[in-house]
Amino acid sequence: MGYVKIQYETLKTFSNVVFEKMGFNKNDAGIITDVLLTSDMYGIESHGVQRMVLYYKTIKNGRIHMDAKWEIVHETPLSAVIDNHFGVGQLVGNFAMNMAIDKAKKSGIGIVSVRNSNHYGIAGYYAKMACKEGLIGFSTTNSEAIMVPTYGRMAMLGSNPIAVAVPAEPYDFLFDAATTVVTRGKVEVYNKKGEPLPDGWTLGADGLPATNAPDILKNINEKRGGGILPLGGATEQFGGHKGYGWGMVAEIFSSILSMGLTSNHTHIGSTSGTCHCFAAIDPSLFGNPEEIKEHFSNFLKELRESPKAQGQTRIYTHGEKEVEAYNRILKEGIPVNQNTLKEMKLICDEYGIDMEKYLGKLEF
Amino acid sequence: MGYVKIQYETLKTFSNVVFEKMGFNKNDAGIITDVLLTSDMYGIESHGVQRMVLYYKTIKNGRIHMDAKWEIVHETPLSAVIDNHFGVGQLVGNFAMNMAIDKAKKSGIGIVSVRNSNHYGIAGYYAKMACKEGLIGFSTTNSEAIMVPTYGRMAMLGSNPIAVAVPAEPYDFLFDAATTVVTRGKVEVYNKKGEPLPDGWTLGADGLPATNAPDILKNINEKRGGGILPLGGATEQFGGHKGYGWGMVAEIFSSILSMGLTSNHTHIGSTSGTCHCFAAIDPSLFGNPEEIKEHFSNFLKELRESPKAQGQTRIYTHGEKEVEAYNRILKEGIPVNQNTLKEMKLICDEYGIDMEKYLGKLEF
Repeated sequence: MGYVKIQYETLKTFSNVVFEKMGFNKNDAGIITDVLLTSDMYGIESHGVQRMVLYYKTIKNGRIHMDAKWEIVHETPLSAVIDNHFGVGQLVGNFAMNMAIDKAKKSGIGIVSVRNSNHYGIAGYYAKMACKEGLIGFSTTNSEAIMVPTYGRMAMLGSNPIAVAVPAEPYDFLFDAATTVVTRGKVEVYNKKGEPLPDGWTLGADGLPATNAPDILKNINEKRGGGILPLGGATEQFGGHKGYGWGMVAEIFSSILSMGLTSNHTHIGSTSGTCHCFAAIDPSLFGNPEEIKEHFSNFLKELRESPKAQGQTRIYTHGEKEVEAYNRILKEGIPVNQNTLKEMKLICDEYGIDMEKYLGKLEF
Repeated sequence: MGYVKIQYETLKTFSNVVFEKMGFNKNDAGIITDVLLTSDMYGIESHGVQRMVLYYKTIKNGRIHMDAKWEIVHETPLSAVIDNHFGVGQLVGNFAMNMAIDKAKKSGIGIVSVRNSNHYGIAGYYAKMACKEGLIGFSTTNSEAIMVPTYGRMAMLGSNPIAVAVPAEPYDFLFDAATTVVTRGKVEVYNKKGEPLPDGWTLGADGLPATNAPDILKNINEKRGGGILPLGGATEQFGGHKGYGWGMVAEIFSSILSMGLTSNHTHIGSTSGTCHCFAAIDPSLFGNPEEIKEHFSNFLKELRESPKAQGQTRIYTHGEKEVEAYNRILKEGIPVNQNTLKEMKLICDEYGIDMEKYLGKLEF
C-alpha cells in the first residue's frame, strides 16, 4: 500500500466535516481535527488522521460516550480533578489544559488530573499549548497496559508517554516520549511488514525476550502475557527499571491523583477509562522569563553545534524534528496511507459524505 | 581490597566528629553525615561515606567554599531561586527542600531552584524528605558533563538524576535514577576490576561505541570526547533520544530556571557550580490524601504480585530495595571499603582525631 499526499487545509476541512457528521458540534470537531492533524504535521502518522476510523468505531460500540459531559469533582486555585465520564479524550484534554494554563497565569502553577477518559492523541499537543502562552507545559496519559514491569511477564502499565514543552528560540523545546522502549504502533509496523522485531523491544507470554510481532500483539490483546519493554530494556543492566519508573510517574499523575483506573484496569469492560494529566508553570516564578528563555536557547544552540559522532552530521534538540516536519509537510502535503483512505471512504459512505468533493479524485 | 562492617550509630558519630573538625558546626555536620549515611543505608556505596575524602579535598582546594552563605535571589509563595555561592550542596539542599516543603504546606506546591552549588549526594534523599511530611517530593541536579547527546561525541549533560517520592504503604514509592544508562560510579567499578564495560554503556572520543573503562574515564576528565550514553543507548532504535530528553528535563529545572551553569560549563575553573531543584506537592490539591495513598498502595501491591517472568521470583516497586537494604544494614552494619578506611585515617591524622576511639580496631 502506498501513500497519497493531501494538503493540510484540504484534509482539515474534510476531517471537520466527518466529525460534524458523526455528531460533534463545529467547535468540538475542530478541536479533534486539530489534535489529529498536528500529529500528522509532526510526522507522527500513528496518532494522526489514520485514527479517524478508530474514533468512529469506538463511538459506534459505545466505548466513547459522545454525549458525556465532564465534571469538575475537585478544584483549588492551583489544581483540579475532572471526571470525563468516558467522553472524548481530545475535548476534555483541550479543556483541562486551558484550565491548567489559566491557573498558571493567575496563580503561577496549574495541575489538572483527569479520570474516566479515552485516548487523547499525542501528549505533546497539550504540553505545547502552554508553551504558546509563554509557560512551561506538561502532559501525560496512561493507556491500555502494554508495558511489562522489570522481571514481570504481564503488561501492567501503558505506553504512558510524558511530554514537556519549554519556550525557546528558534524552536520551543518539545520532548514527548513513551516510557516504553517503543510504542505499540512501531510493533504494528513490523507486523504489517511481516518482519521480526529487533531484539530488545518485546517479551513473549512467558516474560522472556521474543521478536514475533503477530504473537506479541495477539498476546497483548488477549492479556495472555508479554508485551513491550520499558525504556532501558529487560534487565537492570541497561536501566529497564528506569523506564518502568518513568511509566510509574505517568501513572501517578494521571490515574493515581485522579483516583482513576490504572493501566492494568483500563479496557476491561465496554469502556476505556484512560486517565490524563495537564500542567503549566509560569517561568516568571523564577525570574525574568525572557532571560530564562535566552539562557535556555543558548544551551540548545550549544547542543546542536557540539561535535558530532563519527559518521553523523546533526545533533537534534527535542522539538526540532517536529518543526522541520511541519514546515516540509505544509509544503508537500500530508502523506495518507491508501488503507486509511479506504477506511475513510466507508465512513463517508455511511454518512453520505461526498469524499471526492473534499479530497479530489485519489487513487486507493 | 575487602570490606569491614561498621554499625550505623558508630559510623554516624565518627562522621559527625570528622565534619566538625573540618570546621562545620554541629548541626551542619549532622546534615552532611545524614545525607551520606542514608546513601550507604540504601546500599548505594558510591554516594555514601566513601565520599568523605572527596569533600575533604574539594574544601581544601577551594572548590567548595566552606564559609559561603547562600542567598535567596528570587521568591514567591510557590517558588524560590537560591544562589549557593559555591557552598556545600547538602546544606543548601536541606534548606531548599525544607523551603519547598513549607511552601507546599502553605500554598499547595513549592519549587526551589538552586545555582552555583556543589555535589549534593543522592537526589532521593531530598525527595524523601517531602514524603515524610505526606507530600509528593522531587529533586534533580545537574553535574559535570558525562552524557553524550544522541549522535554527538562530546559530553554535554551530567548524569542528571531525577528523584520522585510518593507516600505509600508499606513502603513509600522512591524512584531515583540517573538519566544516563549507568552512572560514572559503575564505570569506575569496572575500571577498578580491570574488566571491559558491557556494550551499550559508553562511547569513545570519536563518539563510537567503546568499552575500555580507563580510556573513557580519562577522556571524560580531559574533555577529549566520549562519555556515558543516555538511558536508551546510542541510537533512536532503543530510545537513546528519550534518555537525552530526561537529562534535558533535569537541566531545565536545575540550571535553566536558576540561570545557573549547564553541565557542560561546570567544573571548568576552580569551582563547580552544580545546580539543583527541589519540589513538593500536597496531594490534598487533588482530594483526600489518605484515599489517594490507599489507591496508590493497591496498585503497587498489584505490581509486586503480578506474574513473574520465567526464572524470576520477584517484581520490585521503586523504593522497596532501599527499605530492605536499610533494614538489613541496620542489623549487619555498613560495609566500608578498606581503601575508604585508609583515606579516613589520613584525614584523622591531619585533624588529630583518634579513629580507633570511634571505630574500634579495624583491619585495613
